Formats: sequence, C-alpha cells, structure tokens
Amino acid sequence: MNEKLTALREWMLSNGFFGFVVPSADEYQSEYVAPCDQRLAWLTGFKGSTGEAVILLDRAFLFVDGRYILQAQKETNPEEITVIQTNDGRTADWLFAAFPKDARIGYDARFFTPKDVSRMKTAAKNGAVLTPLAFGPIDTLWTDRPKTAAGWAVHLPEKYTGLDSTAKIADVTASLNVDGDDALILTDPASVAWLLNVRGNDIPYVPIVQSFGVLYKNGTFQWLVDENKITDALRAKLSPLVEIVPPSALPHILEVFGAHGVKVQLDTARCSDLIYSILSAGGAKVHEKEDPCLLRKACKNVVERDGAVTAHIKDGAAVCRFLAWFDREAPKGALTEIDTVEKLHDFRAENPLYRGESFATIAASGENAAFIHYHTDETNNAPVRKNALFLVDSGGQYLDGTTDITRTVAVGTVSPLEKKRYTQVLKGHIALATAVFPEGTTGTHLDVLARQFLWRDAVDYQHGTGHGIGAYLSVHEGPQRISKGMGKTALAPGMLISNEPGYYKAGAFGIRLENVVMVEPLPASPAAEIKLLGLSTLTLVPFDRRLIDKTMMTPREIAWIDGYHARVRRLISPLVDAETANWLTKTCDPL
Amino acid sequence: MNEKLTALREWMLSNGFFGFVVPSADEYQSEYVAPCDQRLAWLTGFKGSTGEAVILLDRAFLFVDGRYILQAQKETNPEEITVIQTNDGRTADWLFAAFPKDARIGYDARFFTPKDVSRMKTAAKNGAVLTPLAFGPIDTLWTDRPKTAAGWAVHLPEKYTGLDSTAKIADVTASLNVDGDDALILTDPASVAWLLNVRGNDIPYVPIVQSFGVLYKNGTFQWLVDENKITDALRAKLSPLVEIVPPSALPHILEVFGAHGVKVQLDTARCSDLIYSILSAGGAKVHEKEDPCLLRKACKNVVERDGAVTAHIKDGAAVCRFLAWFDREAPKGALTEIDTVEKLHDFRAENPLYRGESFATIAASGENAAFIHYHTDETNNAPVRKNALFLVDSGGQYLDGTTDITRTVAVGTVSPLEKKRYTQVLKGHIALATAVFPEGTTGTHLDVLARQFLWRDAVDYQHGTGHGIGAYLSVHEGPQRISKGMGKTALAPGMLISNEPGYYKAGAFGIRLENVVMVEPLPASPAAEIKLLGLSTLTLVPFDRRLIDKTMMTPREIAWIDGYHARVRRLISPLVDAETANWLTKTCDPL
Repeated sequence: MNEKLTALREWMLSNGFFGFVVPSADEYQSEYVAPCDQRLAWLTGFKGSTGEAVILLDRAFLFVDGRYILQAQKETNPEEITVIQTNDGRTADWLFAAFPKDARIGYDARFFTPKDVSRMKTAAKNGAVLTPLAFGPIDTLWTDRPKTAAGWAVHLPEKYTGLDSTAKIADVTASLNVDGDDALILTDPASVAWLLNVRGNDIPYVPIVQSFGVLYKNGTFQWLVDENKITDALRAKLSPLVEIVPPSALPHILEVFGAHGVKVQLDTARCSDLIYSILSAGGAKVHEKEDPCLLRKACKNVVERDGAVTAHIKDGAAVCRFLAWFDREAPKGALTEIDTVEKLHDFRAENPLYRGESFATIAASGENAAFIHYHTDETNNAPVRKNALFLVDSGGQYLDGTTDITRTVAVGTVSPLEKKRYTQVLKGHIALATAVFPEGTTGTHLDVLARQFLWRDAVDYQHGTGHGIGAYLSVHEGPQRISKGMGKTALAPGMLISNEPGYYKAGAFGIRLENVVMVEPLPASPAAEIKLLGLSTLTLVPFDRRLIDKTMMTPREIAWIDGYHARVRRLISPLVDAETANWLTKTCDPL
Repeated sequence: MNEKLTALREWMLSNGFFGFVVPSADEYQSEYVAPCDQRLAWLTGFKGSTGEAVILLDRAFLFVDGRYILQAQKETNPEEITVIQTNDGRTADWLFAAFPKDARIGYDARFFTPKDVSRMKTAAKNGAVLTPLAFGPIDTLWTDRPKTAAGWAVHLPEKYTGLDSTAKIADVTASLNVDGDDALILTDPASVAWLLNVRGNDIPYVPIVQSFGVLYKNGTFQWLVDENKITDALRAKLSPLVEIVPPSALPHILEVFGAHGVKVQLDTARCSDLIYSILSAGGAKVHEKEDPCLLRKACKNVVERDGAVTAHIKDGAAVCRFLAWFDREAPKGALTEIDTVEKLHDFRAENPLYRGESFATIAASGENAAFIHYHTDETNNAPVRKNALFLVDSGGQYLDGTTDITRTVAVGTVSPLEKKRYTQVLKGHIALATAVFPEGTTGTHLDVLARQFLWRDAVDYQHGTGHGIGAYLSVHEGPQRISKGMGKTALAPGMLISNEPGYYKAGAFGIRLENVVMVEPLPASPAAEIKLLGLSTLTLVPFDRRLIDKTMMTPREIAWIDGYHARVRRLISPLVDAETANWLTKTCDPL
C-alpha cells in the first residue's frame, strides 16, 4: 500500500474533502520543478514532467498526456492508481462532472492557474465544490521534503543577450502605458530572467531564478527574489530601475493593489490562482493579457540569433563525436543507456560555454524508445541492444544558446518496417524544413506537412511537431508551437522552433528526428506578391543513411538531405577529431 | 452626391448620432438576403454578399473582405465612401477605437449578433457608446423598399431527406434534455428547414422559409412563420409536434421566458442581438451554445449522401454540355458573359429536379475573373474575350442536392504565366483531394495543402479553400470549413465541403478550380493504427488539359487527373448528346 495516499486520505477525511487534485506544476507553473516541488512524483511515483492526480477516498486517478502514458503505467501501481490519457495531461472533464453535488474537491491554489480553476469549476456540472487552499496538505505530509535549493543568480552579458535590461524594461513599460495599466505582474521566472538578463540554477535544466516581478508604469521594477542569491556583482549589473524585494512581500503588494483599485496586467494563463484571487478579491482591476515578455523573448534579436547559430555548431560537434563513438562502440554490445547519456554529456562539457543539459537526455534502445519521454536511471537502465534502433534526444545549455536534438540510429540490422517508418518521419521532417509560408501563418497550419506521409499509412505520433526554444533559457518556450492544437501565434522572424516528427510502436521501437529551425524572412523576388518566411535549420548532425529508403524519397527530398549533409560536414569536420571527421565523411556522402 | 447618405446623416443629426453601422445581414443573419433586406446595397451601391458600412457625419467607410475589394471599389464613389479591406468584411477595430468618448454609434440590433456587438463595444476603447435600435432608420428612409416576398413553403419528402421531422425533433430534444435546458431557440432558417424537412423561396438561391423556431424540452416545436405560406398539404406533412405561430409572437415568447427564468439554449454567434437582449434583460437564463442542428445538418445521412452523388452526376452532365458548347462558340468571338450564364442555366433547367441556381453564377472573362466574386449583369456585361482565360463558378439547387463548381478554361492562346498558375492551383486542388487524415482533423490543418505550391512562388489567394454545402439548402453552410482561420469543427463522415483554391492577378486574370468533396471513412488495413478519413470528389467535370503544364506535375498528380477524367467520361458520357460525348472523349484523354 502507498502510505502517502493513505496519509493524504486521512487528512481529507479529517478536513471533509471528497477529493484532492495534485498537479505536476509548482507555484511558478514551471515545466521542470525543483526536487522540493515534485509533489506529484512523491505522491504517485510518476516522474514525468506533466500530469495531474485526483485522489478520492477509495480510488485514485492519474492523468497524463500521450508522451507519458506508458511511463506512468510503469511507474505506478495499477491496483492503487488508474492511469488515464488525456490530450493535455490534465484531469478529464468527465471526472469532475461525475463528482456528486456539494462534494468538496480540494486543490492548492498556488499550483493552478485561474484558467485551470475555471475549467475545473465548469466541468463540475453536478455541483461539486472546488475548494482552494493557500497552502495544501502535501507540503505538511511530505516530512522528508528537500529544502529549497539556495541557487545562485548571475548577470548574462550583452554579448549574449544583445540588449541591456534598461532598454528591455523601457520597451515593456511603453507597452504597459499603451495598454493604460498601472502595473504588470510577471509570474513566469523565464520572463523575469529575460527582462533582467539574469540566469540562475534553481531548477534543473532551465537557468532561471525562482522569482516574480512587478513592473510599474513609471518604469521601475520590483524583483521578488531571495536576496541571498544576489551577489554584489549582479547588483552592480542590474538596471538602476530594479529594486530587490523579498518574495514574502508579494501578498502585501497584491493587497495594496486591491485597496487602491490599481489596474494590474496579469497573464492568467500563467499565474497562480492564488495571486489572481488575492488581487481580484481585494479590488484590483485585473487586465488579463498574455505576458508581454513572451513574444519579445520568442523573437530573438540579431545577437541571440548569432548565438543560436554558434551554439548549434558547437553542439553539433559534440553530438557528432558522440554518434561516431556510438557507431564504434554500440555494435560491441557492452553499452548501457546510461553509458551513452554520460558520454554525450562529457563531449558537450568539453566546451567552455556549456552549462549543462537543457533537459534530461532520453537515450532509449529498442522498445524503450516507444516511451516518448523515456527516462533512464539507475533503477531502469537497459543495455543498448544490437539489431535495434537507438533514439537519443538531448540538448545543451550554452551561454550563447539552448539546443535540442533527436537522432535515431541503427545498431546492426533493422527491420524493413523500421526503415520505412524512419523514411516517412524523415520525409515529414524535410517537408517542414523546406516549408515557405506567408506572414500570419501559425504552426497549426504547418503541422500537417510533417504528418502527411505517416497518415497515408494510417499511423501518427501523439505529440506536437515543434516547440519554441529559449536563448540560454527554457528548451520549451512559447508562445509559438507547431501542433494540431489551435495556435494563434504567427511564426515570426527570429523565432526558434523544433522540427520533430516521430513514430512510436509500443513494445517494438521509437523514431524521432529533431532539428532546431529559425524562422527567417525569405528574399523577395521581383514577382513576389506576398512576403514569405521560411525555416533555416540550425542543428548540424547527419541523419542515419542506413535507415533511409531512397526509393521512397523524391529527387527534391534527396537533394535536401545531400545539401544538409554537405553543410554538416563542412561546418563540423574542422571542429572534431580525425576519427569523427572520417565518420562524417562517410555519413555525409550523397545518398 | 448620394442622397441616401445625406438623408441618413440628417436623421443622425436629428437623433444625436455620431455614426451609424450598416451591415449586409438581415434579421436571420443570412448570407443572401431578400431585395427588401438589401439595406447596405441601397445605401452604398455595393452589391456583394458581405460587407459593413460605417457612416459618419462627414465621412463614410465600407469594409469588405478580400473577395470583394475590387468590386466594392468599382461600385462605390471614392469621393463619398472609403473602401477598406478586412479579413472578415466587418468594420476594423481601429475605427471603433478612434471614435471619441461618449460619441453615440447607432446600429439596428436585428442585424447584429451578440458577438458582433460585444466586439464593437470592446473595440470602442475610447468610450464611444454603441447604441442599439430595435428598428433602425434605413427601413424608414428607404421609401421605395420592396415588399417582403410572399414565398411558398413545401414539404421535402423523405426520399430526399432520409429522416422524418419527428425523428429529427426527438434527436434534438434529447440533446436539449442532456444539456438540462428548457427550450432552444432556432434563429437560423436553414436549421428550421432541416429540422422540419421544409423548403421555400423567400430569399434568392437558398430554399429556406424565413422563420424562427422554438423547441421545448417536452419535444414540441413552435414554428414562427407567416401562416399564409403554409398550405394544407404542408400542414398535413408536418410532425404533430409542430405548432404554427405568427412571427409577431416572438417578443412575447421571449418576455415570458424572461419572466419565468427559463433556461434557454441560444446560438449567440447566429442570433440577433435583439433576441438576446430581450431574453437576458428579461431574466431568462441564456445557455450560449452552437445551434445543435448545425453539425447534424452538416453530416449528411446515407440518403442525403446518395442524393449528393446523383445531383453531382446530373449537374456534371449540364456543366459538360455547357463547356462543350462554350468550346465551340467562344472562339467565334460573339459571346458575352451573360450569354454564358443563361446558357448554363438552360442546360441545368432541363433536369426535372432542378430548382434554380444555388448562387448567382460568376462568369468572368480575362481580367474580370480577378474580381473573386465578380457579378455580371445588364450594366456590366463584358464580351468573352479571345486569347484569355474564362472562369465560371456556378451551382444548382436540385431536390436531391446542392452543387457548386468552378472551372477556368482557355479561349485561344494564353500566357505561360496563366498556364503556370493554373497548374499550381491544380496541384493544390489535387493535394487536398487526395489528403488522408485522422479523425479530429479540421480544415485549418489541411488548408496549407492547397496553398503550398502557390506559396513557393510567393503568391496566395485571399479567400478560404473550402466551405460546407447543404442538401438542397445553402451552398455555404457550416460549421466545417477549410481555411486559415482557426476552425474547431473536425471533418466528419458525410460532410460535404468545397475544394477551391485559386489565384487572382488584378487587371489580368483569375483562376479557381472547385469541386465538391465528401468526407468518408477510409477502409482500414490490418496494419492501421488510426482511423483515417479521406475526401471523395463528387463533382464530375474535366479540367482544361490545355492549361496543364505536365512538366510541373508529379506522376502521382498525373495519375489522379487521368483517373478522375476516366471517371468523368464513364459517368457523364451516357447522359449527354453526341457532340458533348465527343468533347469528353477528347478532354478526358490521359495527359
């Protein structure tokens, strides 16, 4: 029996709760959370990045998205927890609808956005009562909970950011004044990091400092952050407009806003329900609007674009060295998945600008790769099998940029089906890489290009095709994406986005081919009637020619691969050892 | 000087209005409106189906969508009316934003939906006051306004509808009860026509009866319709659940709903603001929800599907006869556009099930075809030019189905650019026609398939790629569509939708290639992992082989055209005269 569930149920009984909702999010609505914030993993055992559990007195449900369905089934006890797949990894509306009238369903208001809460309330059609707590029971029940990491915070120089924080603050302040609002609350630490040109290490993989910010219409900025993280050097670099304020001051600030009826701009898709509730209950005028840093951060400036290019060159060199090594070692049959994760990290770490992985490397042999976000660790380490596909999805954080790349390679002989699916995924990848489109096009419009060849064979992949990528920030950032979901953000020059179609066959194999691309305006011909944008591929690592069925490729697709491989070889060969350079010569030869 | 504008401005001055908004819609929010409801055309001269004018005391603006920009500029006086293009043909938000604080902007609440009004109010950021009228000034100023046509109403037999109205009413009533609502107000006459299996002739092209309906949770239905249109024969055919009620009773019904706090389901995207206001101001509980008839009407049942197939066969025969005749006559140089419109109508009219055009035929020679919805009439009739493209977009209403087809053909010699663009449009048409996609896919996802080849040449077309089509109902119906707009309705089996990419070069030529396709489930192979849908083409008329640059086509595309042409010839030849059959033999030969 899971004693944690028992303890939570005892607390629910004592406090009159019919059910309790536990999400994966922390109070910053982060994708990656610090160990002290991994409440869902503590409670259920599920270690994926996104999910939501609903604990009832006699049953428990865990909702996850398609990436995590297999992993969640493996990491939880089916006699205790029923795992259910939903599109977004959040609780299905039918469950809220099934709760009886007046049943109290608790949730910690720090870990839900107002939109989340609104959706839960609407879904509870029979009249169950969604009941917020300002500080939920998990933090009390979790007796051996890790302490909050006392991370550091540093200034990221303008040679990487391209724009000083005073200029950025002035720009966002101007937008605040155009909107006629008095203040803007930034609840996303990545927005604060971008605005202040600071980076930290409070959570894994994303170099943010856990903090909130308040920008006033006069251009001053309160940074709600643990003062212990602010060195004198950083303080000297911060814009004189920035004041350091302890995070504990936030409730007071919100109450003052309420008392004075201040017009506050807030991204209710990204802030906690607790912040929203204190503001609106207190009397502040909340202007709900997308975080204005979001689109500014997504459209990289010229310095950030150059940084992304150079980061991908050095990352490409590291990944090529890794794949050349892998090609030599894997057929000997002695490697484990963890060996490959460590080796890849070691190659990246040789670069002085490397600051760590941008997410936990997925290294998956054979059927393990069918777990879309497979994670290998000591308890779960498989040998790299011969005569199987091997998938490695990894990325690096460099001072000049963030990378994200997936390659799937053959170890030994693979089946005709594996080769066929690899080629179909590759054709989708190329169709997206070579897409040209007018301004105003969103990733929703382009998604079909990557899926069309798989669809013709009545197969698909249960994840998005592309996500935004930060500049030495989160490897997953918005607002742009390429997916079936209805995305309203048009692709715009300077945006980075991944191109990562895949295919997964449970119990058999998994394929994903991922490059990072940058949205760029195309040169206009004299006859052009519309302005066109295109995608330039930044990632520089060859595809596995042994897995390409050339008979399925058009001359246009073959030309793209050959051109890409020639570019990889030209740019990467000078940066690697002779053995890797030889490997490149072989792998980058025209098809 | 436009005396109508002058008269409206005098009325505005007397009544303290700063501006007045005049849309193309009638009180049924219909696309096509009766002559008595063509207020926008009366006021401005613009005869397109969609547009909106804003009259100020010293200026006037006319907003139209991309289809109508050239036509609107031609039909209005630029010294009096400024024509502006917007995506949806509605007033741009910036204009409302520019109105000063407290400026009164009038509108007739019968002709706007609540969503329209809400958008106007939000856009009026400076504090202009949107002021509804229950009965606006145009109806008074328009002294020679045509009387409302006293149209007829008839029962459409089950051999065409496939389901009797009692069964349809039971189905929608069940949905009403699941939603827990007391009543449903149907404000779209097409929904009423579908539900009751009635058709009429109150407006051009769409065989509806101008009427509203109220469905109660006990399954009874009040039909708010002019009793003079209901013959004894129709009354006998109507479900016993249907009660005929005079339209003048509607305000009273709405007030009673308010007085009793009735839960009323209403599609606020399709009802008038007047209806919504009376309900909500009166105290009714309005449940805003998409008209439940909409999706039911869109997914044709098996009888309607069969009807669509046979309607397109006979329509194909008529259009082939027309095109064969046109190919003989046009090169002689004596035809006018109106000649072709009349001839096409005559061919269709030979069929006993034909009931008229499904919209005003667009017959456009040369540069006229660049007006996307060009309309030729006595004052505006051009010769069919030699050595130019000719575009004809037309459709028929048949008892067993509604058709919509566009072909673009060569008269004499055409330019290499015309041929290249024709082929690019055709390639897009084929890419959509051959698309296969999983359940859940919307037209937004597929739109890019039709545009991709044009985009590569930095050109595009400023209209959607596809619209739904009724079963002897409106040639444009929702909720599905194929367009850049974010459409949430998934394509589902039995839906009819047009496939109509195009290209338009102002002052030069226009190309559009339109077939009607039906969404169908594809047979599942044993290896299928997802259920696939595809589009089966119903329209049966050859493309113009003289305009196809075969060197630009892939073998797959050529095979599709050859297969389509073989099918056209096989199905249409037996139905036409020998001359047309010879023409088919020639035009349907493999490329």
